[in-house]
Amino acid sequence: MAKDDEVILLGFWPSMFGMRPRIALDEKEVAYEYREEDLMGNNKSSLILQMNPIHKKIPVLIHNGKPICESFIAVEYIDEVWKDKAPLLPSDPYERAQARFWADYIDKKLYVPARKTHSTKGDEQEAAKKESIEVLKVLEGVLGDKTYFGGDNFGYLDIALIGFYCWFHTYETYDNNFIIEAECPKIVAWGKRFMQRDSVAKTLPDQQKVLEFGKVIRQIYGLE
Amino acid sequence: MAKDDEVILLGFWPSMFGMRPRIALDEKEVAYEYREEDLMGNNKSSLILQMNPIHKKIPVLIHNGKPICESFIAVEYIDEVWKDKAPLLPSDPYERAQARFWADYIDKKLYVPARKTHSTKGDEQEAAKKESIEVLKVLEGVLGDKTYFGGDNFGYLDIALIGFYCWFHTYETYDNNFIIEAECPKIVAWGKRFMQRDSVAKTLPDQQKVLEFGKVIRQIYGLE
Repeated sequence: MAKDDEVILLGFWPSMFGMRPRIALDEKEVAYEYREEDLMGNNKSSLILQMNPIHKKIPVLIHNGKPICESFIAVEYIDEVWKDKAPLLPSDPYERAQARFWADYIDKKLYVPARKTHSTKGDEQEAAKKESIEVLKVLEGVLGDKTYFGGDNFGYLDIALIGFYCWFHTYETYDNNFIIEAECPKIVAWGKRFMQRDSVAKTLPDQQKVLEFGKVIRQIYGLE
Repeated sequence: MAKDDEVILLGFWPSMFGMRPRIALDEKEVAYEYREEDLMGNNKSSLILQMNPIHKKIPVLIHNGKPICESFIAVEYIDEVWKDKAPLLPSDPYERAQARFWADYIDKKLYVPARKTHSTKGDEQEAAKKESIEVLKVLEGVLGDKTYFGGDNFGYLDIALIGFYCWFHTYETYDNNFIIEAECPKIVAWGKRFMQRDSVAKTLPDQQKVLEFGKVIRQIYGLE
């Protein structure tokens, strides 16, 4: 990285997508300026509209004025540009494909049902809980007895999932029968272990603060 | 590639997702066995259920017995394993991120409305047509005056989009006012140019054959 590199990250603190490139940058020890977007106030900055005119979403990584959008694409970019430290994707092509497959699975299969555990009610909420548990159990199987999804070292897939961990308390709070640790003890132990990393502790918000935010979301949906 | 490498690809001929790894393998001149899945007959092979138990979808690339699922992940894998010939992703990290961004855009924004141009009717079809044209116009802007999306050489993003080209005639047939060439002349010229490549000509089905298949889909949806 050249000394005069300018790195800016546009994020929104409760977003698991926004957490991914933050953790990646911190693991790589890249100096960057974090800018919080006011998404709740429907008051997006002119910078995000200019840098991500297609999706108008966070995260946006801006490296020397050039935008990289979409969280996984940004994490891969960070891994490729700052490649000398803390490799995130495995070097073996098959293992890389596996990491990408499960990361993609998280976004396709976990995000929507997990969100519905606290933003819906009745049968819809019940179905969302079942679906979330099913997906988390599959991921528990992928983790197995490894320290990290990446093996001994944390990596791309760990970064893909960890943002959900700080939401677990919110998922559980609005459904008394939803105890993630009882269903997926290895995932919960992994999350606790992961929280001890500086990069993660710095980025992941407190579960209580996320719960407060979840409450605001529920108010918006007319559930509180 | 070792001489005793075994490469099998599970596909379904009209699927633009299945076309991607086929074209990538052909561009790399990798010898492989193509196996057609009977998806219309609801008669999936035991091999696909075993190799892709999560999604149970094509394409599945099977390299020496190990499965790589999801079309873009398979194309990246092919590019990484057979890296000495016909590079697909650019070498520059920013350009790689751009190629990945637009490929992701195609799947997120073009696939559903494009399908709806021929599998719905009335207002839904009209909205799908407008949305498809909007997305194709954005992609026309990305292509600009370049020969390929990849510049002088075709690449990842070209492979991402080309499968849609053989469906254009189907999209147009079921809506008389939908003339893609009038809206996106550069994309259509690109498609015609691309059809002259051996890898593409070999894989892409004839537009008339796709139209026949589209008719079957319409019958299933009760539109014919």
